[in-house]
Amino acid sequence: MDYRPDAADACYLLEQVLDAPAQLRALAPFAEIDSDLMGQVLEEAARFAGEVVAPLNAVGDAVGAQFHDGKVTMPPGFADAYRAFRQAGWPALACAPEDGGQGLPWVLEGVLYEWLTGANHGWTMAPGLLHGAYECLRHHASEELKARYLGRIASGEWLATMCLTEPQAGSDLGLVRTRAVPQADGSHRLAGTKIFISGGEHDLTDNIVHLVLAREPGAPPGPKGLSLFLAPKFLVPPPGEGRNTDLPPPPGEGWGGGTRNAIVCERIEEKMGLHGSPTCVLRFDDAIAWRVGEPGRGLSAMFVMMNAARLHVALQGVGLLDAAWQKAHAYAQERLQMRAPGGTLGAGEADPIIRHPAVQRTLDTERAWIDGLRVLAYHTGVQLDIARHHADPAQRQSAQQWCSLVTPVLKSLCTEQGSGGAGRLLQVFGGHGYVREWGIEQHVRDARITLIYEGTNEIQAIDLLARKVLPDGGAGIESMLQQLALGVDTAAADGPETSARLQDAVRLTQELVQASRAQAGLAFEAADDYLRAIGLALLGWAWHRIDRSQHARQARWAAPHRALRLRVLPEYEMRAGILRTQCRAAAAAVQAA
Amino acid sequence: MDYRPDAADACYLLEQVLDAPAQLRALAPFAEIDSDLMGQVLEEAARFAGEVVAPLNAVGDAVGAQFHDGKVTMPPGFADAYRAFRQAGWPALACAPEDGGQGLPWVLEGVLYEWLTGANHGWTMAPGLLHGAYECLRHHASEELKARYLGRIASGEWLATMCLTEPQAGSDLGLVRTRAVPQADGSHRLAGTKIFISGGEHDLTDNIVHLVLAREPGAPPGPKGLSLFLAPKFLVPPPGEGRNTDLPPPPGEGWGGGTRNAIVCERIEEKMGLHGSPTCVLRFDDAIAWRVGEPGRGLSAMFVMMNAARLHVALQGVGLLDAAWQKAHAYAQERLQMRAPGGTLGAGEADPIIRHPAVQRTLDTERAWIDGLRVLAYHTGVQLDIARHHADPAQRQSAQQWCSLVTPVLKSLCTEQGSGGAGRLLQVFGGHGYVREWGIEQHVRDARITLIYEGTNEIQAIDLLARKVLPDGGAGIESMLQQLALGVDTAAADGPETSARLQDAVRLTQELVQASRAQAGLAFEAADDYLRAIGLALLGWAWHRIDRSQHARQARWAAPHRALRLRVLPEYEMRAGILRTQCRAAAAAVQAA
Repeated sequence: MDYRPDAADACYLLEQVLDAPAQLRALAPFAEIDSDLMGQVLEEAARFAGEVVAPLNAVGDAVGAQFHDGKVTMPPGFADAYRAFRQAGWPALACAPEDGGQGLPWVLEGVLYEWLTGANHGWTMAPGLLHGAYECLRHHASEELKARYLGRIASGEWLATMCLTEPQAGSDLGLVRTRAVPQADGSHRLAGTKIFISGGEHDLTDNIVHLVLAREPGAPPGPKGLSLFLAPKFLVPPPGEGRNTDLPPPPGEGWGGGTRNAIVCERIEEKMGLHGSPTCVLRFDDAIAWRVGEPGRGLSAMFVMMNAARLHVALQGVGLLDAAWQKAHAYAQERLQMRAPGGTLGAGEADPIIRHPAVQRTLDTERAWIDGLRVLAYHTGVQLDIARHHADPAQRQSAQQWCSLVTPVLKSLCTEQGSGGAGRLLQVFGGHGYVREWGIEQHVRDARITLIYEGTNEIQAIDLLARKVLPDGGAGIESMLQQLALGVDTAAADGPETSARLQDAVRLTQELVQASRAQAGLAFEAADDYLRAIGLALLGWAWHRIDRSQHARQARWAAPHRALRLRVLPEYEMRAGILRTQCRAAAAAVQAA
Repeated sequence: MDYRPDAADACYLLEQVLDAPAQLRALAPFAEIDSDLMGQVLEEAARFAGEVVAPLNAVGDAVGAQFHDGKVTMPPGFADAYRAFRQAGWPALACAPEDGGQGLPWVLEGVLYEWLTGANHGWTMAPGLLHGAYECLRHHASEELKARYLGRIASGEWLATMCLTEPQAGSDLGLVRTRAVPQADGSHRLAGTKIFISGGEHDLTDNIVHLVLAREPGAPPGPKGLSLFLAPKFLVPPPGEGRNTDLPPPPGEGWGGGTRNAIVCERIEEKMGLHGSPTCVLRFDDAIAWRVGEPGRGLSAMFVMMNAARLHVALQGVGLLDAAWQKAHAYAQERLQMRAPGGTLGAGEADPIIRHPAVQRTLDTERAWIDGLRVLAYHTGVQLDIARHHADPAQRQSAQQWCSLVTPVLKSLCTEQGSGGAGRLLQVFGGHGYVREWGIEQHVRDARITLIYEGTNEIQAIDLLARKVLPDGGAGIESMLQQLALGVDTAAADGPETSARLQDAVRLTQELVQASRAQAGLAFEAADDYLRAIGLALLGWAWHRIDRSQHARQARWAAPHRALRLRVLPEYEMRAGILRTQCRAAAAAVQAA
């Protein structure tokens, strides 16, 4: 069966649980947003993901992107689906109207990409990179570059890439060696090899716009010597005419192509999964490029959209988990094996396996993760919109603080669960889960990359604790957690435990701040457990929000909530215990010294 | 890099930690076993696995077993490696001398297969099924069948399969429909389709011996109507000569082939991994077969070796985890990325990632699992030998009890860790872990099946709690845990906590026994957490044994032990807490009713 996103579920979470339409309407660009509009957009997004993109998931995996002689052919049907995506205006959903976009909130784009990924992770990688490139150029490119590229990227007429990684420079971009030599005409010549470039070459669009991290001659070593460059696959206009000032025809009026830039796709990787997305090795042979933003500010230009990009990846984890859940849930209703405990069948008869507690517990537990993570991710998406558009700087600041703290937590938590949870849902299929035809093992293979890209989950944890929590002595996160705790309804069944967990997370943070003063390395030892503890405290809060909503007593919501409280949230205590053991050890070591 | 098993490590655990040679020498068939002999066998096994089998792992995955027109061609090199394996006498390592075997202890065969699986899981599936078939025929087949088949299976001249699963009958073998119609000559005709048959067709041996679960006409529905049958790929001697009494030439003198039996390989499955092992759909078109054992006793004949087979799968998990660990450890020493906390490098320089705490913690934690699980599995292997060969029935009984209780725990614990731990070790490689060339992602894909086959891990948990612990009111496992607790050295640093955990597991068992009397379905709700809790209590005990041994203070052992105590064992409290919540809920439900 193909994934079919449940728009009603998403609307329920956004409206009834999170009151998102009212929050968005308070922002000037979204004054027109209401439940109807949101519902229409999401219904249409669910239809597109489920009917157009999902049916191509299996062929995308089985055939994969094919490399031959420098060219990449996308799997059958991918180009048509991309054309339909573009024609329907989906790429520009959240782009600014002045760039040809529809100017809708980021959170809706987030939900769209959650669903596209659940439907077909490989296909979704192609348009998935547009949004970062758009924001990056919008904020940092010269007017000339914007005029040439921004509209075409916003509309999805041309796709984009992010060329960061090199063989010796992965998590450590400071080691990037690609050279960018300035030319008399203001352009640069790029030389070097980039690896792991998603969509570095394909046949979906006429042109591909590469954003490339490189080092100018004389730049200092390390990350501060890096600048960002734009290098298109085809040059606009053809080079050799002196200064590149002629503009191409306006977006949408067709483009007759240009001269090929010196960018060679050497091969594509053979990967565990995500076969529908070509992961390219690109060689820049003195390719013509233009700098985007200031020299030495390449990383900050590229990371302008870091929270949005990481939240996208978090939502990929949620989408893949939901797709796996739908498959397992459908299978468990059909598959007859063994009599359920307490059943009345005779020998040789069997119940649907959904009646077996081991299966039901897996379905309920993973459902609890999906729903709770959605609440957190959608709430964070709304905060992203508030941070960009609220009239009150204090509100923007507070929303930005939430995004800064919660995004690494979500990136790690959602992808860990997307991968691990899909694996547990595979187990529902028994041996049938291990063979290709049911499609569940593809989700497991595809999802595995999300723990790695856009900053490994280990780096998210260090980002949270070492870069964001400790520098202000924990003040930021403590005030955020306190505020959540104050909002808890302690008369609700899960109120006292939810509030206590949040308050304990505040104490835990204080203890870690103290202990880290005594032992600087502790942050790196403790980061993963700390991120996980914070994530679980937030997850409990998210479900408390669901529990206070209208339909919380329906089995649809009550069963996962029960599973969450019984089986998921106890991990908080375990993580807190591990962290406190480390804090005590740090204190003892200092005393002994 | 190819996996190279560490024979010295295994010898250390067997000799210094478990005192295995002395325990085995107390058994009549193994009076000659000493450290030297054990060391030689293991050195040779490590060499064979590392030098002959491991180099074929990547090609086995990339090329895979190929199906064409009913025939299966194994990947390049597999047949040669199998020939070398057979010529070296490895298949018969633990077979009885009267069947042409070497008569060595089961535990050494277990270690051999752990290493072969780490080296090349796909290849190892082929000989891996010999041992179950050998024991099954040895205990249940007629003298005539034994004379024709037993020696050839012991020597590995012919490989064997286990044909259990059908499309509608997976975990629930009671639903098997394959028919076995008795013939006047004492043979049967088999008709039906079996799926998921590992090695159902291949080109490694001249003949393949299928053991098939089927139902005779008039047999009752459900598992009690199933009998076991032997159906060879080639008939011995040719049929059509009346009674099949002529014996083939004695094993080892070559075999000219026979008439093809009516067994058709319809296709092989496309799987997530394990591509080197053909997973076949076999159709029996009135195939000629002979019953093995009594009518209606098919399942018990097949499960005579259940503990050994499940322990083999547990050791597969350990082998795959160790192979993944070796790869990640080697990579972490070579790969330079970022400055380690507290380091002194300048901008643009980088430390090997093994110096980063996030990497070190993964390596230490998974090492702790590998070593602790090895101690438990090797100890259980020795108990299997004692259960078979000890002169004292009470000793046999007690060893059998250990195997019966601990085997399902190990099958689940080791395979869960093999799969999940390999996934965490993949993370050490960053993006490079997701591409094929490093080989780590293959381990993750291959390992995933071990949670499913030979009884899913959920079925192991039910087997433990519902079938083994509750029926005797917990007496068996409580006495086993008590005895372990009594043996703990409470003067050791980890003594008090190890003993307390074992004693808490006794109390937890008592609480579950009580609560299950109040609420019969509880066992099925609680089984997975209970298995996990028991497994962690045993893991703590295993490391306590290592801690008391000679070299425990070396960093090789001390660092994983530290990781275990800090990060792994706290899960025991979490599981116990979840179980106690359920016990309280059950008691409250009874009071309310």
